Amino acid sequence: MAALSFSQDANGLIPAIAQDYQTGEILMLAYINEESFSLTLETGYATYWSRSRNQLWKKGDTSGHLQIVKEILVDCDKDAVIFKIDQLGGTACHTGKRSCFYRKVDNGELIEYR
Amino acid sequence: MAALSFSQDANGLIPAIAQDYQTGEILMLAYINEESFSLTLETGYATYWSRSRNQLWKKGDTSGHLQIVKEILVDCDKDAVIFKIDQLGGTACHTGKRSCFYRKVDNGELIEYR
Repeated sequence: MAALSFSQDANGLIPAIAQDYQTGEILMLAYINEESFSLTLETGYATYWSRSRNQLWKKGDTSGHLQIVKEILVDCDKDAVIFKIDQLGGTACHTGKRSCFYRKVDNGELIEYR
Repeated sequence: MAALSFSQDANGLIPAIAQDYQTGEILMLAYINEESFSLTLETGYATYWSRSRNQLWKKGDTSGHLQIVKEILVDCDKDAVIFKIDQLGGTACHTGKRSCFYRKVDNGELIEYR
């Protein structure tokens, strides 16, 4: 299997960026460990490790907003990945927004721009 | 100043995704702490924290491949950001590739695709 660098420095976690496979929009950033990466490869659905719940997190398992993984890109150090996904239900963020990145810095302050 | 969640859980670091402001291509992922974020806001150039060198890292300071920050997006938990950038010199990766994400998973193995 594709060997990533799951260093124990960060509890075996590396960041995974979920990006819309058609538009390039970044929808969220979460973390994966080796087990969640294996499950993502096996099932074709983005599966992360929830740092708050300390457990495997098949994204959308309760909401139905599953993420179908179309392609996985890996960076030079093998310690970050991009999941190119098809976001079912259209919504990635728990706030109901399409993307978790719905705020921007404006004159040093955070504002919602979408 | 825009207050991000620089938790001490991860040595005060959060991930910053550098994304081409025009095409949406993801060029790299690195980390920022509060000081590097402040410097990014002040100077307009992407400044990270190098985990390997354990010091501030103004991207491109030696190579000339500076990143002009056009916009900064912040996620729902305020613990991840996107730097929408103009990549000077066209190259973000230390390998000489435009993007650090030049490999993909193909049948379970890593291959270079660009």
